[in-house]
Amino acid sequence: MNIVEIINKKRLGQELSHEELDFAFNGYLKGTVKDYQMSSLLMAICLKDMTNKEIFDLVDIFIKSGEVLDLSSIPGIKVDKHSTGGIGDKITLIIGPIVAACGVVVPKMSGRGLGYTGGTIDKLESIKGFNTSLTKEEFIASLKTVGLAVTGQTNNLCPLDKVIYSLRDVTGTTASIPLIATSIMSKKIAGGADKILIDIKCGNGALISNLEEAERLKNLMEAIGEFYGKTTICEISDMNIPLGSNIGNSLEVIEAMDVLKGKQGKLTDLAIKISVEMVKISKNISDQEAKKEVLEVLNNGVAYKKFLDFVKNQGGDITSLKVSNITEEIKAPTSGEVKNINALNIGKLSCSLGAGRINKEDKIDYEVGIVLNKLVGDKVNLGDTLFTLYKKDNQKLDLNISDYYEIN
Amino acid sequence: MNIVEIINKKRLGQELSHEELDFAFNGYLKGTVKDYQMSSLLMAICLKDMTNKEIFDLVDIFIKSGEVLDLSSIPGIKVDKHSTGGIGDKITLIIGPIVAACGVVVPKMSGRGLGYTGGTIDKLESIKGFNTSLTKEEFIASLKTVGLAVTGQTNNLCPLDKVIYSLRDVTGTTASIPLIATSIMSKKIAGGADKILIDIKCGNGALISNLEEAERLKNLMEAIGEFYGKTTICEISDMNIPLGSNIGNSLEVIEAMDVLKGKQGKLTDLAIKISVEMVKISKNISDQEAKKEVLEVLNNGVAYKKFLDFVKNQGGDITSLKVSNITEEIKAPTSGEVKNINALNIGKLSCSLGAGRINKEDKIDYEVGIVLNKLVGDKVNLGDTLFTLYKKDNQKLDLNISDYYEIN
Repeated sequence: MNIVEIINKKRLGQELSHEELDFAFNGYLKGTVKDYQMSSLLMAICLKDMTNKEIFDLVDIFIKSGEVLDLSSIPGIKVDKHSTGGIGDKITLIIGPIVAACGVVVPKMSGRGLGYTGGTIDKLESIKGFNTSLTKEEFIASLKTVGLAVTGQTNNLCPLDKVIYSLRDVTGTTASIPLIATSIMSKKIAGGADKILIDIKCGNGALISNLEEAERLKNLMEAIGEFYGKTTICEISDMNIPLGSNIGNSLEVIEAMDVLKGKQGKLTDLAIKISVEMVKISKNISDQEAKKEVLEVLNNGVAYKKFLDFVKNQGGDITSLKVSNITEEIKAPTSGEVKNINALNIGKLSCSLGAGRINKEDKIDYEVGIVLNKLVGDKVNLGDTLFTLYKKDNQKLDLNISDYYEIN
Repeated sequence: MNIVEIINKKRLGQELSHEELDFAFNGYLKGTVKDYQMSSLLMAICLKDMTNKEIFDLVDIFIKSGEVLDLSSIPGIKVDKHSTGGIGDKITLIIGPIVAACGVVVPKMSGRGLGYTGGTIDKLESIKGFNTSLTKEEFIASLKTVGLAVTGQTNNLCPLDKVIYSLRDVTGTTASIPLIATSIMSKKIAGGADKILIDIKCGNGALISNLEEAERLKNLMEAIGEFYGKTTICEISDMNIPLGSNIGNSLEVIEAMDVLKGKQGKLTDLAIKISVEMVKISKNISDQEAKKEVLEVLNNGVAYKKFLDFVKNQGGDITSLKVSNITEEIKAPTSGEVKNINALNIGKLSCSLGAGRINKEDKIDYEVGIVLNKLVGDKVNLGDTLFTLYKKDNQKLDLNISDYYEIN
């Protein structure tokens, strides 16, 4: 077997065997297949697709590249939640504490930013001291005491996903339903939870932009979960406009805390909806009962307290959170109503400010980002601040406001 | 501008601007774009194609990445000839001396073997002392005195092509008409000739296997040549069976000399056809006049004498040429007529004997190769020698004769 022949086969749209996928992907992990060969294969997969057989084979290869967590020593149902990611999507930081506050164990293995979408791990690392590399023992101990733990993928769990994920991020090969399904489900299954809830973001600010692809991803991931004996529920939610007001790492942690402290809005509504679903499938109770529990822990501060416990337990100093003090306010060039905010362009702008990566080695600036001062539906007057940039330096940006806001 | 956005744009099948192509390709040359990003872009180009505008832009970028040879100090018309390469293709070694003997200057920049196809530079290096790395001054001086010089690509000419070419070779991204056209034409134009003749090999033993693609490549390269004011003529020739009888480095030089000394056959016919075309476009004369000149220099020994002058001028000792004395004759397992000889498999066999490279670092054995004792159309009797292997050791090969010869 030879990697160039395997790449050529996929380029011609042919089905790769389990052996060929294993040779290519594990070869990359071992270093016998080079990154420039793997990225070429990934692009061929993006453009020539994979059959279901190839996808199930690849999930198997990803899972077996590392160990599978055994969470059976933790009492109760363990439910994992995943979002396919979108601009301003800090929802994990909100629903994790809510669901844990309802007494459901939430073992969460998260990723870094991909494309223009931020990653939960990057966001948490904006909190000084926060340890996103828990050992297996630390992870299980945290789940037993706090009921919620978030860790980056350890080297032992799906190491293959880790290396492929970061390569995809910098090679324009993120937009592939087979690769997205493989990446998410292999991690979720290796993560050891009993039930899995996946929030598929769909829209221009998400990895998946059309509903047909979102449906395919939903069916694929539910089938993979089923195959491994894990109840898997996928919700499809809109991501044409950014989620909430804040984009950027520290900024998103701050907004998540605001929601846990009572801030209302669409972000809060979505967080409640997903939390209810997770509590419902974990406790086998009705929608109404689950909603009652969720609202209670939000309103009585228990969920917020859970967030603080969670941060402290993983070594984070919440008082350290800070955002850049170099800001630039972007003013409305006209009066009217905000009809739309372009999530993708806001995401790109945030990346260009330093909140995301362009190359694998890029360092993230946690303090930069964007705050949307006006949201869709808001009335604006000429000269009102539409959004505020938090920047690393005073360099003036030459923005075309209509790329971001549609005002009528 | 950012490389991931550029890759994504091509992945979505959109046209890249001159600035974007420049950012990506010159970025790769400078090291700001990584090899894993370039290979992903190359695969997207293979699968999503390029518009003519993109191809012309890329040729421009390739040419400008290095210097352009100025051959104006050499009197007369300079005509360059290129073959897209195939098994047993030693035609450059035949037509170079013929055309130069007709008084046309032939400045030839050649490559090494790619895949299973041999390279002219490798073939010439089987002659002891032959210098394939002429300086610009030596190249021009040789053209002035002998009218024919062959040298490897210098680092100063199309350095971008050099790095992209070797990346394509190991990433399954060779099969792209836009990339092939760009690679060939940028080198030819930078090479400084006035007129260009390209022999496009088409068939299972060549880089291009179907006629439709060969036609597209022909039209594209002729248009690019035209744009740079260089008359460019592309001939499409068959490469489903090996060209001539000998495959291997010394063996091919010997066969080229045999043709120049009067050996007849299909190889001689093709060499005459291409030589006539080159003399015709260079001298602006009729087919008949050109053919008369070509046959004259072949028949009166002037072309062969030109070959000897050319070898001597570049330091080669033609008496040093030798082939391995360890041979193995492969006998016909049946009687009948040779219906087909599989060029690709003969090429692979020759490589496995040591005549070609599998990895970039491999050393070539100049004395090994294959002589086809029976050609397509020949009658054979059971036990006749079909072909002879020239080997480096006595190890017996276990060949399946029907992989090479079809006899009915």
